[in-house]
Amino acid sequence: MLSEIVKRELKRIVGEANASFAKEDLLCYSYDATNSPYLPDAVVFPSGAEEISLILKMANSEGFPVIPRGAGTGFSGGSLPVEGGVVVSTERMRKIIEIDTENLTALVEPGVVTWELQTEVEKLGLFYPPDPTSLKFSTIGGNIAECAGGPRAVKYGVTRDYVLGLEAVLPTGEIITTGVRTAKGVVGYDLTRLLVGSEGTLGIVTKAHLKLLPKPETTKTLLALFPDIKDAAKAVSAIIRAKVVPSTLEFIDSACIKVVEEHAKMDFSGAGAVLLIEADGSAESVEKEASTIEKICMESRASSVRAATGKYEVKDLWKARRAISPSLLKIRPDKINEDVVVPRASIPDLIAGIEDISKRHNLLIACFGHAGDGNIHVNVMYDKKNPVEAASAEDAVVEAFRLTLRLKGTISGEHGVGTTKSRFIEMELGPAVIDAMKRIKATLDPKGILNPGKIFPKANGPQKAGFAGAGK
Amino acid sequence: MLSEIVKRELKRIVGEANASFAKEDLLCYSYDATNSPYLPDAVVFPSGAEEISLILKMANSEGFPVIPRGAGTGFSGGSLPVEGGVVVSTERMRKIIEIDTENLTALVEPGVVTWELQTEVEKLGLFYPPDPTSLKFSTIGGNIAECAGGPRAVKYGVTRDYVLGLEAVLPTGEIITTGVRTAKGVVGYDLTRLLVGSEGTLGIVTKAHLKLLPKPETTKTLLALFPDIKDAAKAVSAIIRAKVVPSTLEFIDSACIKVVEEHAKMDFSGAGAVLLIEADGSAESVEKEASTIEKICMESRASSVRAATGKYEVKDLWKARRAISPSLLKIRPDKINEDVVVPRASIPDLIAGIEDISKRHNLLIACFGHAGDGNIHVNVMYDKKNPVEAASAEDAVVEAFRLTLRLKGTISGEHGVGTTKSRFIEMELGPAVIDAMKRIKATLDPKGILNPGKIFPKANGPQKAGFAGAGK
Repeated sequence: MLSEIVKRELKRIVGEANASFAKEDLLCYSYDATNSPYLPDAVVFPSGAEEISLILKMANSEGFPVIPRGAGTGFSGGSLPVEGGVVVSTERMRKIIEIDTENLTALVEPGVVTWELQTEVEKLGLFYPPDPTSLKFSTIGGNIAECAGGPRAVKYGVTRDYVLGLEAVLPTGEIITTGVRTAKGVVGYDLTRLLVGSEGTLGIVTKAHLKLLPKPETTKTLLALFPDIKDAAKAVSAIIRAKVVPSTLEFIDSACIKVVEEHAKMDFSGAGAVLLIEADGSAESVEKEASTIEKICMESRASSVRAATGKYEVKDLWKARRAISPSLLKIRPDKINEDVVVPRASIPDLIAGIEDISKRHNLLIACFGHAGDGNIHVNVMYDKKNPVEAASAEDAVVEAFRLTLRLKGTISGEHGVGTTKSRFIEMELGPAVIDAMKRIKATLDPKGILNPGKIFPKANGPQKAGFAGAGK
Repeated sequence: MLSEIVKRELKRIVGEANASFAKEDLLCYSYDATNSPYLPDAVVFPSGAEEISLILKMANSEGFPVIPRGAGTGFSGGSLPVEGGVVVSTERMRKIIEIDTENLTALVEPGVVTWELQTEVEKLGLFYPPDPTSLKFSTIGGNIAECAGGPRAVKYGVTRDYVLGLEAVLPTGEIITTGVRTAKGVVGYDLTRLLVGSEGTLGIVTKAHLKLLPKPETTKTLLALFPDIKDAAKAVSAIIRAKVVPSTLEFIDSACIKVVEEHAKMDFSGAGAVLLIEADGSAESVEKEASTIEKICMESRASSVRAATGKYEVKDLWKARRAISPSLLKIRPDKINEDVVVPRASIPDLIAGIEDISKRHNLLIACFGHAGDGNIHVNVMYDKKNPVEAASAEDAVVEAFRLTLRLKGTISGEHGVGTTKSRFIEMELGPAVIDAMKRIKATLDPKGILNPGKIFPKANGPQKAGFAGAGK
């Protein structure tokens, strides 16, 4: 609970109209995609670093949590006010300050929607590659906090690879600028990349210098249908082994195909698995890569491979691909949505292992995702109201994590730890690593006021359950 | 000074033959490319993480400095034992443990020479892009500690972009593994990139998982001669503005051309500036890019542009380019070698400003470097024995730093801070940033035993002078 003095001071800092304590407003800021709501005590809409600095300084002296929030599209609870406190929404900080066409950089505020930035830079013949599936809603600030990836990561990398420098407010309220506007820069520690992916626990980003690329001349989209999931998985390995790097290499299993066929009115002729593959670059190299990919798919027993027949079909295919995650809830009431990553060559082993887990627990597990970089979204489908099935689903996820780690992968490629995976990080990270991370958190946020309750497992006591996407 | 007990224990840990306290050995480990030697008390050659862990634990309990060292080719004093102590050389840790052609990764020990790794992966059709000029001698461990760059950074980025995960020993002796073997991974803070570029002050890297790329199908090397340096600088901007990303875009000014002509027996027909440009990729796209580049150079008043006529000429050109730095000392006895970076479009302003500084101080300033990413090696030539000239040279460097920062650049793109730039980091980084970095250092190395005296300016008292490459 915030005192009246704190409430008055918050209003003074951000302006009367930009702070709310009304339950109907707070409800809107209690959610993310995990569907495990926690009500904050206040939501504020600051205009920039100076106001955020004042809020954080007060949070340290008065002892209340501060939770930075972009669009709240996260799958791991990163933006949830699990201990109450003040949600700092970046909604009013959504200016694209500069697109520098000479140096191929952009300077943006954190509330800019990723899609908006992409649209603007593409008008100038430039390209901002990171493309999380949420890109039409999620913000650059949220993407930076979670180090968002997306389909194009196989060729272009993730958000981390496009952040040159930041303006941020440290948990103790100091405004810092990190990094550079240039490709190189080695003065001091890499605070920029320490902040990227720190899930809003080490600082609040207030401006970002982003790297842009020239827009690829052309893109070709291929759709390959396979009778069996294992053939598709083998094709993925074969493509990488052939040293072709497509710009996307997406994988959809039969459960997801069914959903897409029913809900996006697409026809995949009852295939057992689909690869959605794009090559980009100069027209000549794209044709060459596409024909290599086609050949490899046919050699891997694809039943058909064809190019999308125009920009409308490409758009439809991607719309269908992006609709998988929400549409899955039409076949079962609940899902646990994980985003494990394995070395690409181990995808066939991962798929086989998941099939085995699915059979043993008698649960539908739907898989899709970014096969090109080994990042598979594993969706364990179940019904929350059935406690036996719910327990089974949680067991299945833990087994999927164990399998992933045995295959030398990681339990999260894009979604982050947040609240939903904090119980599991010890499976992946050794105690010395967790201790080093905690020491960094403690030295930068000695009072523990910035986004508390995230990433690190609680020392004692059970935690509120909350698997990723466990809700509807 | 180390006690007899410590010496005995060091021998016990690494083996009698792998520890030395003899002055003739210590002398060899007192140097780097700054030519400001500091004698260590011991040099040890451990076999891996376990031995390094024991050494660091003893350093904490007994209170002696530990200084990690690759090949000692650094320009900023990163590997110098400025407070004495034990040099930990990675010379015996030089195994390429694995090159994974399916997942395009390599697992290597830190003592592997960069060139060696490149040669091995290229045999398999793969490619490790980071190419510091020292690559025939410098090690992966040193490259990681300094976040080494090189000519190819304009297209391929720097060492940071190729480090997926690390095994490292923390200053307090814990062995940790960070990061992943995959392109994506967001479990906890990015300790991998915190270690990269931390100049051996936050941990000693004992293994590295590196990302590899498919080797580009072909490369074309162009040599463009310009009557005047300003035309060359404008051509660089125009190439980037045309959204062409060459794989290297190197710049050589007239002072450096003279050196190359005299000492590498090359003929550049008395040009005022040279650009050495490479395009790589598929044969078709390379031809297209090369012809765009050629056109732009001619439009920017190049006196000639031609392709290198075979692999021997390409080799000779690069040999000449790499010989610039050491050869400069043939025209003046001493140099201060800086590696400032400005946004690419500001290169003409940087060049004009440096010319002005050169005139005002009556000093020859030779410039060359990685124009494609704005990283210019500014070499202030002087004679150490002439105190007036030496003072002038230091003033000129400070002015070059100020100019760089005015142009929104950074005072070091590749060389790092070490001992030579610690006095200047406050010009670039705000006090809150330096404080945050110091807090991270203090929490991970509470006794301050790992590579002390680097990066951060000393609180009080004058420091031993030591500009980069100030020696012969």
